[in-house]
Amino acid sequence: MSNIRHALSVKRSDDFAQWYQEVISAADLAEESGVRGCMVIKPWGYGIWERIQRLLDDRIKETGHDNCYFPIFIPLSNFEREAEHVDGFAKEMAVVTHHRLVANGKGELVPDPAAKLEEPLVVRPTSETIIGDAMARWIQSWRDLPLLTNQWANVVRWEMRTRMFLRTSEFLWQEGHTAHADATEAKEHTLRMLEVYRACAEEDLAMPVIAGEKPENERFPGAVETWSIEAMMQDGKALQAGTSHYLGTNFSQAAGIKFQSQEGKEELCHTTSWGVSTRMIGGVIMTHGDDDGLRVPPTIAPRQVIILPMLRGKDGDDDLIAYCEDVRAQIAQQSALGEKVRVLLDTKPGKAAAKRWDYVRKGAPIIIEVGGRDMENGVVSMLRRDALWAENGKPDFHTPLKNDIAAEIPQLLEDIQKTLFTQAAERRDANLTRDIDTLDGLADFFNADVKHPGWVEVQWSKPTGSELEAVVEKLKELKLTIRNVPMDSPAVDRACIFTGKPAVERIFVARAY
Amino acid sequence: MSNIRHALSVKRSDDFAQWYQEVISAADLAEESGVRGCMVIKPWGYGIWERIQRLLDDRIKETGHDNCYFPIFIPLSNFEREAEHVDGFAKEMAVVTHHRLVANGKGELVPDPAAKLEEPLVVRPTSETIIGDAMARWIQSWRDLPLLTNQWANVVRWEMRTRMFLRTSEFLWQEGHTAHADATEAKEHTLRMLEVYRACAEEDLAMPVIAGEKPENERFPGAVETWSIEAMMQDGKALQAGTSHYLGTNFSQAAGIKFQSQEGKEELCHTTSWGVSTRMIGGVIMTHGDDDGLRVPPTIAPRQVIILPMLRGKDGDDDLIAYCEDVRAQIAQQSALGEKVRVLLDTKPGKAAAKRWDYVRKGAPIIIEVGGRDMENGVVSMLRRDALWAENGKPDFHTPLKNDIAAEIPQLLEDIQKTLFTQAAERRDANLTRDIDTLDGLADFFNADVKHPGWVEVQWSKPTGSELEAVVEKLKELKLTIRNVPMDSPAVDRACIFTGKPAVERIFVARAY
Repeated sequence: MSNIRHALSVKRSDDFAQWYQEVISAADLAEESGVRGCMVIKPWGYGIWERIQRLLDDRIKETGHDNCYFPIFIPLSNFEREAEHVDGFAKEMAVVTHHRLVANGKGELVPDPAAKLEEPLVVRPTSETIIGDAMARWIQSWRDLPLLTNQWANVVRWEMRTRMFLRTSEFLWQEGHTAHADATEAKEHTLRMLEVYRACAEEDLAMPVIAGEKPENERFPGAVETWSIEAMMQDGKALQAGTSHYLGTNFSQAAGIKFQSQEGKEELCHTTSWGVSTRMIGGVIMTHGDDDGLRVPPTIAPRQVIILPMLRGKDGDDDLIAYCEDVRAQIAQQSALGEKVRVLLDTKPGKAAAKRWDYVRKGAPIIIEVGGRDMENGVVSMLRRDALWAENGKPDFHTPLKNDIAAEIPQLLEDIQKTLFTQAAERRDANLTRDIDTLDGLADFFNADVKHPGWVEVQWSKPTGSELEAVVEKLKELKLTIRNVPMDSPAVDRACIFTGKPAVERIFVARAY
Repeated sequence: MSNIRHALSVKRSDDFAQWYQEVISAADLAEESGVRGCMVIKPWGYGIWERIQRLLDDRIKETGHDNCYFPIFIPLSNFEREAEHVDGFAKEMAVVTHHRLVANGKGELVPDPAAKLEEPLVVRPTSETIIGDAMARWIQSWRDLPLLTNQWANVVRWEMRTRMFLRTSEFLWQEGHTAHADATEAKEHTLRMLEVYRACAEEDLAMPVIAGEKPENERFPGAVETWSIEAMMQDGKALQAGTSHYLGTNFSQAAGIKFQSQEGKEELCHTTSWGVSTRMIGGVIMTHGDDDGLRVPPTIAPRQVIILPMLRGKDGDDDLIAYCEDVRAQIAQQSALGEKVRVLLDTKPGKAAAKRWDYVRKGAPIIIEVGGRDMENGVVSMLRRDALWAENGKPDFHTPLKNDIAAEIPQLLEDIQKTLFTQAAERRDANLTRDIDTLDGLADFFNADVKHPGWVEVQWSKPTGSELEAVVEKLKELKLTIRNVPMDSPAVDRACIFTGKPAVERIFVARAY
């Protein structure tokens, strides 16, 4: 099928990073804003985020959480309380120092020296400390536990090198924060929310992930345990798509989150936090995109079916629009993947072929085109975005009867959702390597002239402290990081490839975003 | 009914401001965060906001808008472009000057002098200028118009005196921004969105409003026309609950939002912007609250029906819960006000009577209590929040049959929604005064020892410039402001009460939040 003329100018196999940028632009997902490190999320990109939000919010509420909203500003002194948390975050935060601008007499505005804040405020990079303050107010007795909260918010981390969706100074996310009476319950909850993320990634985003615990050096600042879901992108790199942290009593100690137990004793709460962000959209692009643009899984597609009448600016247009409207109305009555089908009849000015390619690049799951001849024959011309090209290198149009198409849509959408997941899972599994058991072998594997080496699972002795630092340093030379310790792995049966000691668990190492 | 023991300690008639604070606390809507001027919105308050968001978002999408997301940071120089806009906003904004904290060697963190921003960034107080930049990029030809965008976001305006929901430094809102080919279309759109706000306020929030144009002195900084919806609170004061602005070409000029017309000429777009915020919740409180707490209109109630089993920590509890669960399941299958009924079975520990009063204060529309005797008799005990007290001064419980209650719920909820609106509209109408035709008369009216004088409609000659300033100053002495020029008013037939000239329109003057 080499005679295909793809819709993008860059192929994944030629320059994956460049391809990623082109998808974002060609699918009209987002753009640079002109404000350092901040992007504008455009309607199709934001529409995908709204879908992810709604589905994940339902899952979060089903597990007993209420949404709240906490201040965007955090007093600087809050960050001084939890030592590791400071080290982890103090380096890259937006600091508000003034509350007024004033004209400087040269036609410019400057921060008003008379309006300097006594204590600078930090734009939240994450909300453990400010929510911890609230928890300390809200929790008195064991009856108040568990306290299960969540918020949808923007956060800011000043990043030196930014990349749309993957690493931006401002991003959108949800952050869940919970307090529990003991470690067992808090750890269970940490894993419960990790499972929510796994389900959201795999079922909603059709993005297969590996869930597991992060090694000590990759823990969230202040956490006792950090767990993640990791997805493999089409270039074989790993994307950390969500994290869930068991924070022990570190933040409770710092903020005074205490409760009176059933036995009447004052005890510290055990807390958790967990978040996923607009980074997920970067994962969707690099999991499902192809050389024609994005392919959006139907479950998170803002519109699942697009109908394009081939308008000619002539008399027949009204009939054509009426015909298409009839198709639209029939499809809108269908349900698929547990919800009403989201269908759009697009009658905006523009050539039908140009509009078709716009929606191909956007990755709308099903595109229906209707021209005068289709109308005469009582059919529609339909494209599946996940099976765009026919053997002959042309778009693979099918022409179901107009009166049949609506009934076929639910099955088609469910099939596309499944196909996208299966393709990604098969590609991921084909790029997991498990038979390397020496450090040299690992180096050879990643130094070989292979474009997308994927991930390697090795066994290790779980070193800590300086011994772990040495491992991290060695991996860094190979541009590798430890992703996580996959859950439900088979028992270990080898020596640690770093220390030679008996292995205690398996880890994935990979290049990563 | 003077023997009623109300659920709040402060009555509206005794101290309205204090009552307002008590409702917020007693209904567990929000609390001070400890961060200056920023509040924490708690689950029941945020749940109301989520309902408003979803309903208004549907209305905004129905009128053709797409949601986007724009950066929270706006370069300072953006504010220098539109002169009036600077004057209006430059005074009270959070200014980010540094992007890193550093330890000062005394165990404290300070803004890192090495990380001072070249150009300070302002935390958005509103987004006309940054969205204007995007519009200038997005719009080339008449085919790109109208451009209809909206965003849900947090904004910050540094307020000296804050009040929860009504005036906070950070608040949540939606801001719509549109660009059009000409003034006529842009003005039509300004009014279309005002009508969306009217419908949302009256139909969803059951809060009657008067829609009209603001006078020149109350215009949004940079606007050509500002329209508002104004609601009357129970103390007779006005609350501006939403505004819609026709911005002319002011922001287009500043940001270069131009298009090529069908005739091939380069022209400036005419833009609009419009917003409503979490302030709406303050309006709901002061419209529907009573001496027992909040009363939430069913359409925006996070939970419309609460079921409280009177648990005794004994053997019979399981049967009681099963009985209640059956009621819950039957109610959950009902639809009311166009959606599935939102019902909660609350089995948390705590005495049933205490929990009942919690939900009374929260304003859940229907509270169902079930005790052992109810179960024996095959009934439930039901309270309507809008008709809480019986003639004898006791809670007015009704005891419908268990198997009848579910079918009755939709009608009850619709009736409560209607009742709340009708009560508010009747109270509002009873407090509109229209027979004052001199300034002295106006002064006497508002200086009289009347607790809640309400609003007065007068006729005026629509003075401008210094003549208007004199009017505004006079009104200020009476603590009055001009609210708006109500739409669809009868023709004028008197002299202007300020200037003595023939009147050209009617205006409402009132004390306001």
